[in-house]
Amino acid sequence: MQARVSVTLKSGVLDPQGKAIEGALHSLGHAGVTSVRQGKIFDVTIEGTDRAAAEAELAKVCEALLANTVIEDYAIVIDGNGGAAA
Amino acid sequence: MQARVSVTLKSGVLDPQGKAIEGALHSLGHAGVTSVRQGKIFDVTIEGTDRAAAEAELAKVCEALLANTVIEDYAIVIDGNGGAAA
Repeated sequence: MQARVSVTLKSGVLDPQGKAIEGALHSLGHAGVTSVRQGKIFDVTIEGTDRAAAEAELAKVCEALLANTVIEDYAIVIDGNGGAAA
Repeated sequence: MQARVSVTLKSGVLDPQGKAIEGALHSLGHAGVTSVRQGKIFDVTIEGTDRAAAEAELAKVCEALLANTVIEDYAIVIDGNGGAAA
């Protein structure tokens, strides 16, 4: 089963990388871009066909390794359908 | 206008970070995870309300800065609707 996990900074958390990208885009002439926030995505292949079990496993994986839940949120999308988010 | 740009490695390009995450997950007991590939997402706010113009601008932004188009693909999703991809 294929899943995409996206990990983004919680709103209110400063994103220095995003700010740096904004500055670079402005200097490249893309003044229309008013804000950029960077995150990570993980395309994960997981064994099994039970969607709920896969989601539960992936939530554990996010909590254990992929996301720093103090400052980051994660969202799990399995096979292109909406999934769990935290 | 809000857009999400996802940048992922082209298939066939080795992803050492993904491999490292796979190994770490296996050692944490998540043997069900058979593959992990990491990418980046950018949540971009861009001025204007013309979707096509925003997509064209974002494609330029991707080509200029956000994606290394030799080894990476990018996909632009504006306001939750399907958008351009390369």
